Amino acid sequence: MSFIPPLADLIDAFQQLPGVGPKTAQRYAMHMLQAADEKTEKLVNSLQSAKADIIACEQCHQWCMATPCKLCTDTRREQNVLCVVESAQDVFALERTQSFHGKYHVLGGLLSPMDGIGPDALNIKTLLDRVQSLINNGLTMEVLFALSPSTNGEMTSLYMARQLKPLGVNTTRIAYGLPVGGDLDYADQLTLSRALDGRQGI
Amino acid sequence: MSFIPPLADLIDAFQQLPGVGPKTAQRYAMHMLQAADEKTEKLVNSLQSAKADIIACEQCHQWCMATPCKLCTDTRREQNVLCVVESAQDVFALERTQSFHGKYHVLGGLLSPMDGIGPDALNIKTLLDRVQSLINNGLTMEVLFALSPSTNGEMTSLYMARQLKPLGVNTTRIAYGLPVGGDLDYADQLTLSRALDGRQGI
Repeated sequence: MSFIPPLADLIDAFQQLPGVGPKTAQRYAMHMLQAADEKTEKLVNSLQSAKADIIACEQCHQWCMATPCKLCTDTRREQNVLCVVESAQDVFALERTQSFHGKYHVLGGLLSPMDGIGPDALNIKTLLDRVQSLINNGLTMEVLFALSPSTNGEMTSLYMARQLKPLGVNTTRIAYGLPVGGDLDYADQLTLSRALDGRQGI
Repeated sequence: MSFIPPLADLIDAFQQLPGVGPKTAQRYAMHMLQAADEKTEKLVNSLQSAKADIIACEQCHQWCMATPCKLCTDTRREQNVLCVVESAQDVFALERTQSFHGKYHVLGGLLSPMDGIGPDALNIKTLLDRVQSLINNGLTMEVLFALSPSTNGEMTSLYMARQLKPLGVNTTRIAYGLPVGGDLDYADQLTLSRALDGRQGI
């Protein structure tokens, strides 16, 4: 016996979530069917309002409810440091550290020639315009790349650094090395060699 | 920085799903925000229609779209064997085996004095009525209990068997033993002792 159509559809819909296979989707669907109506309504309403109310900031492309976003309009943040990240959730991760006090720029992806993702598919043009207009305002800019340490991440950082340097911008990237609490013994070769390259005085 | 309210709400809503903690909920929410509108709509619509269109069969209490359900009205199925299960999803699990050809009765839970769940909270009365009316129609009934091998499951089976036996009903339960593919070495003591008790001639 296969599932009745509305249940099969619901299982199918839950399978859209990342890392959710048929078994987990079935568990979620069964749970929602047995749950009180308020639970389902809560999920439905929050999905709808998240999609309706959350927009991208026209300056930094971060998720927000009004553009330009609170981070862009915050005058207490450093105006001369821009942190470039791949996606909106990276901003939340960096903000949780409370260690960065500049502004952000969300690329919306990484360059990936294999997948046909070129510079025009990303928010690179708006970054260059933004940096240029800040320089025109007399600021000495630093652009900090906080992209994942993958081939595509590296390539994206280098591609943009090459265009920013002629403008007199100080381009930097976050340090690669051993994660805190990580065991030297378990670190992979590449991480370890990066950690050696980036050695610092103590 | 905390999440903007619609995002925080969505993360909260996803945490209602079984086994989903803050990290997974965040991943689901971020995914849904970045996904195409159709994906969100699919989840919203299927949640709404599952809740609206799926009802409980008035005879067997299984989920269905019209009552009595297809299983109850299927004349090719054996009329004289009723399989008692805890919940609607157990019916799907048993049907997938294609080894049972009788009808079902969904209890909607197990007796649990600790949690204050007594016979009135379950579909026990309707089972007794159903069995009685089948007996009145001249059938010799078998009631097969397929409940989980827990204290509550045992207690529930015994409680109902005691009421069914005086009606002349043959009460049975599914076999407990080693799972197929399971290793004897890894089987717990109780499973192994059940497997010994239930030994069969070969």
